[in-house]
Amino acid sequence: MAAAKNILFIMCDQLRWDYLSCYGHPKLQTPNIDALAARGVRFTHCYVQSPVCGPSRMSTYTGRYMQSHGASWNGFPLRVGEMTMGDYLRPLGMQAALVGKTHMTPDKETMQRLGIDPQSTIGVRTAECGFDPYERDDGLWAIGPDGAYDERVCRYNQYLNQKGYGGDNPWHDYANAGENEDGTLASGWAMRHARKPARVEEADSETPYMVGRAMDFITEAGDAPWCLHLSFIKPHWPYIAPAPYNTMYGKDDIIPVVRADSEKIDPQPVYREFMQHRVSQTFARDEVREEIIPVYMGLIKQIDDQMGRLFAFLKQRGLMDNTLIVLTSDHGDYLGDHWLGEKDLFHDASVRVPLIIYDPSREADVARGTTCPALVEAIDLLPTFIDAAGGKASDHAQRLEGRSLMPLLRGGKPETWREFTISEYDYSMTQAAQRLGVAFKDTSLFMIADARWKLMHAPGFRPMLFDRENDPQELKDLGADPAHESERQRLMAALNAWGLRISQRVTVSESRVNAGRSRSMRRGILIGVWDESEIPEELWSAYRGKN
Amino acid sequence: MAAAKNILFIMCDQLRWDYLSCYGHPKLQTPNIDALAARGVRFTHCYVQSPVCGPSRMSTYTGRYMQSHGASWNGFPLRVGEMTMGDYLRPLGMQAALVGKTHMTPDKETMQRLGIDPQSTIGVRTAECGFDPYERDDGLWAIGPDGAYDERVCRYNQYLNQKGYGGDNPWHDYANAGENEDGTLASGWAMRHARKPARVEEADSETPYMVGRAMDFITEAGDAPWCLHLSFIKPHWPYIAPAPYNTMYGKDDIIPVVRADSEKIDPQPVYREFMQHRVSQTFARDEVREEIIPVYMGLIKQIDDQMGRLFAFLKQRGLMDNTLIVLTSDHGDYLGDHWLGEKDLFHDASVRVPLIIYDPSREADVARGTTCPALVEAIDLLPTFIDAAGGKASDHAQRLEGRSLMPLLRGGKPETWREFTISEYDYSMTQAAQRLGVAFKDTSLFMIADARWKLMHAPGFRPMLFDRENDPQELKDLGADPAHESERQRLMAALNAWGLRISQRVTVSESRVNAGRSRSMRRGILIGVWDESEIPEELWSAYRGKN
Repeated sequence: MAAAKNILFIMCDQLRWDYLSCYGHPKLQTPNIDALAARGVRFTHCYVQSPVCGPSRMSTYTGRYMQSHGASWNGFPLRVGEMTMGDYLRPLGMQAALVGKTHMTPDKETMQRLGIDPQSTIGVRTAECGFDPYERDDGLWAIGPDGAYDERVCRYNQYLNQKGYGGDNPWHDYANAGENEDGTLASGWAMRHARKPARVEEADSETPYMVGRAMDFITEAGDAPWCLHLSFIKPHWPYIAPAPYNTMYGKDDIIPVVRADSEKIDPQPVYREFMQHRVSQTFARDEVREEIIPVYMGLIKQIDDQMGRLFAFLKQRGLMDNTLIVLTSDHGDYLGDHWLGEKDLFHDASVRVPLIIYDPSREADVARGTTCPALVEAIDLLPTFIDAAGGKASDHAQRLEGRSLMPLLRGGKPETWREFTISEYDYSMTQAAQRLGVAFKDTSLFMIADARWKLMHAPGFRPMLFDRENDPQELKDLGADPAHESERQRLMAALNAWGLRISQRVTVSESRVNAGRSRSMRRGILIGVWDESEIPEELWSAYRGKN
Repeated sequence: MAAAKNILFIMCDQLRWDYLSCYGHPKLQTPNIDALAARGVRFTHCYVQSPVCGPSRMSTYTGRYMQSHGASWNGFPLRVGEMTMGDYLRPLGMQAALVGKTHMTPDKETMQRLGIDPQSTIGVRTAECGFDPYERDDGLWAIGPDGAYDERVCRYNQYLNQKGYGGDNPWHDYANAGENEDGTLASGWAMRHARKPARVEEADSETPYMVGRAMDFITEAGDAPWCLHLSFIKPHWPYIAPAPYNTMYGKDDIIPVVRADSEKIDPQPVYREFMQHRVSQTFARDEVREEIIPVYMGLIKQIDDQMGRLFAFLKQRGLMDNTLIVLTSDHGDYLGDHWLGEKDLFHDASVRVPLIIYDPSREADVARGTTCPALVEAIDLLPTFIDAAGGKASDHAQRLEGRSLMPLLRGGKPETWREFTISEYDYSMTQAAQRLGVAFKDTSLFMIADARWKLMHAPGFRPMLFDRENDPQELKDLGADPAHESERQRLMAALNAWGLRISQRVTVSESRVNAGRSRSMRRGILIGVWDESEIPEELWSAYRGKN
């Protein structure tokens, strides 16, 4: 096989690490994704840098921790100038295009202050976190009394209209709604309707549509190297699926809920408040889980079927032999585990994601079909892509906080690898912060974990600690257990050292610094010299003026 | 007196906190600066955020710690988009102009990538850390075998040429050089020539020239409110002064060196290596101190005389009644104290600076002539200026890490004030780092101090600790003393908490976040809803489509 020429970077939204058959789900068969794993490397311990869409993606696209890029919540703009995937790949001769979701919000204020025209090429890229948007679609075409959540033009709605689905927002009325017995609309936003078939042909639903758009891009792209970020908006809510996926699974197919009554006894205060959120209360009910999870599974099954369609397309065009293919997710979904819904906090259900990478190059043959247990992070993908594109990720070490996975894709055994993985959460926007009276500046939560231990540091409150060796389901919080003080101290010491790292010295590379090390002296800056004889005569040359 | 309409922000370069008579120097009389202190507030414990010109100034101009803005060494560019003094003051109707030094290096790579024209107004401001440069002069017109250290056009050289001082670089040949007995040039870069008179008329030397330029600006500025950053390049090296300042002081006028032989016994490793630097070795010699310090004092005396000239000019134009005047420095100068030269590390000689603020407003009358012992930082100046200009510094709390001094200028007693001050040093460019084999990513040094204790944290090495109550001269390093483990832990805990602060969430303000708190729900994002009845009917309005 040839080396990778293109990169197909597939991201699912809210796909839990354990909801694929190759990751051990007993009932949800995902043969196409499994086949990719059989041809590539499956990472068993990949963690996202934040369990929330926006910040997680901004970390993935910049290769930097959330504390470094600062876009810590959906709708918090990524600062202008922050280098992203496209900024690194284009100089290497690879275009970077987007089909689907990024949850990027542009920093319009700074763009205006710096005079960056939003209509210019750089303006569009700055507003789309570095991608050329072939089609930007966050899958959040919601409308309320105050108007649309996403005020962009929705091309998918135009497509649905053309297909005969009427109204201003067929995304909701057809793709994300069912029908009541009296013929009225059953909105997908009300989860009780989850099992009803969406009012759209399966072929016209969001996942096949996005795959179609990806195929359009690839067809148009021709021979020039490309990185395509195919970013699905499923299995993210609204939890509703078109037939036949809405009824493909039933309550007997869902894996047991991971929770214990003991978790509700004197819980860590932030955790306690998150359990009070509406979504947590809703998912705590078995009837909800039994209705929602089968549909969540159906949406994943649909993605797998569409992967089969996409991979066949690539094969037919001979692209399977020169395209690096990545499949991952931006975070998980609690689905009622630990008495929580959505993706807050740091249990594996939330921050651990699937990561499968297929490298077509010969060097990767040795590792095909293997699994890799190394602690990897979403921020490792960008360095990996830079290396795959023929660049050198290490040249950007002043900015990139992740590490190239290339050696691991080729059976390499790096002498050293990270001993801890870190994830962060800014809960400034949550009811929990308001109830706890936490000031805006103090709303950081940190996870630091190694292969066995996981600590949640919540400034102002006691930590949470889990021993995954003896408690793989993370049900027993040892955060206040005197017997584990030393473990907490060890993890906190590592987190504290991380907090003091250099993360903003982004404008100078080590190589440039080394090159300029003696610059000032050779340009006449002579510090601490008493007598001319102390330094070479040539350094004085320019100072031998005549009188 | 009226409230402040203008701000005159005077910064000296490398002026130690204790080399002014109002700060207790027994021999160096600075009556004009003392008079300013008598009309304003003199801060006795002001610390810079880095003891190096560039990073210290970037912190002052951005109101952010070095770890936050990342421009951690001279020549390391400030990232594009970082908000600076001018960006905050202009929207308040106050222009921000520069006369003198900033040590700013533009991030040309990012400017080019973002298409910011260096010739445009925003391009120039971005390259000059937000100021409109009336005259940019870093006072580093050095030339060596590889060319000029500063490749800008030197207006001061043009001025000297017009005045009849010949050659390509009269800055060196006249303003910073003396003459040997044989008539040859005695370069100021060789410190042995320090006591020789510079070959320039005093009125044409750098400090009077800069004051003249400031007066030119003020004359041209007219009635529109202005903030003028008058940034002297003295008493910074080259240590050479025009007559009569070169001989105004002698070795009997210098205050005793602050050092002890015990400091050389098993010193902290980073400190040990800094003692090996050429400049430290040079200043360790008494003959050097006895030649250099009198000239250093002369250069300060000249600044004080020029302050008299400038204040008289302001008075004559009625500007003393409506101009907030600040006098401070970017860092100190070891001058041989602690066996060090220059301004590395965190002894008071290096990181403590004078800070005098004169507020013309009536509200400040109660505090005139007083001293303030509060721990203040250079990053407090920008918030103070924003408040003085009629803005609200607290509106920018997501970026500004300092705190407005306005209450302290008006006799206020804030309920809370910072308990610790922090300074940082990036020693990646030093021989010390090379000798110690410290990796580029690990070259941070941190100082955290309260009123009594001062800790230096050097990742990878043992800390330094000083008890200024019992050891005001900081001669006894308690960094390895078991008896002070609890103090070290207390200070490290505070530094660690600081390291985990939110410093990059710069694109959203708390007020905007609060305003948008319920935005997503009112725009149709309905999370965790099982039954329509759980939330107000109006939220469903847009979803009541017909079938």
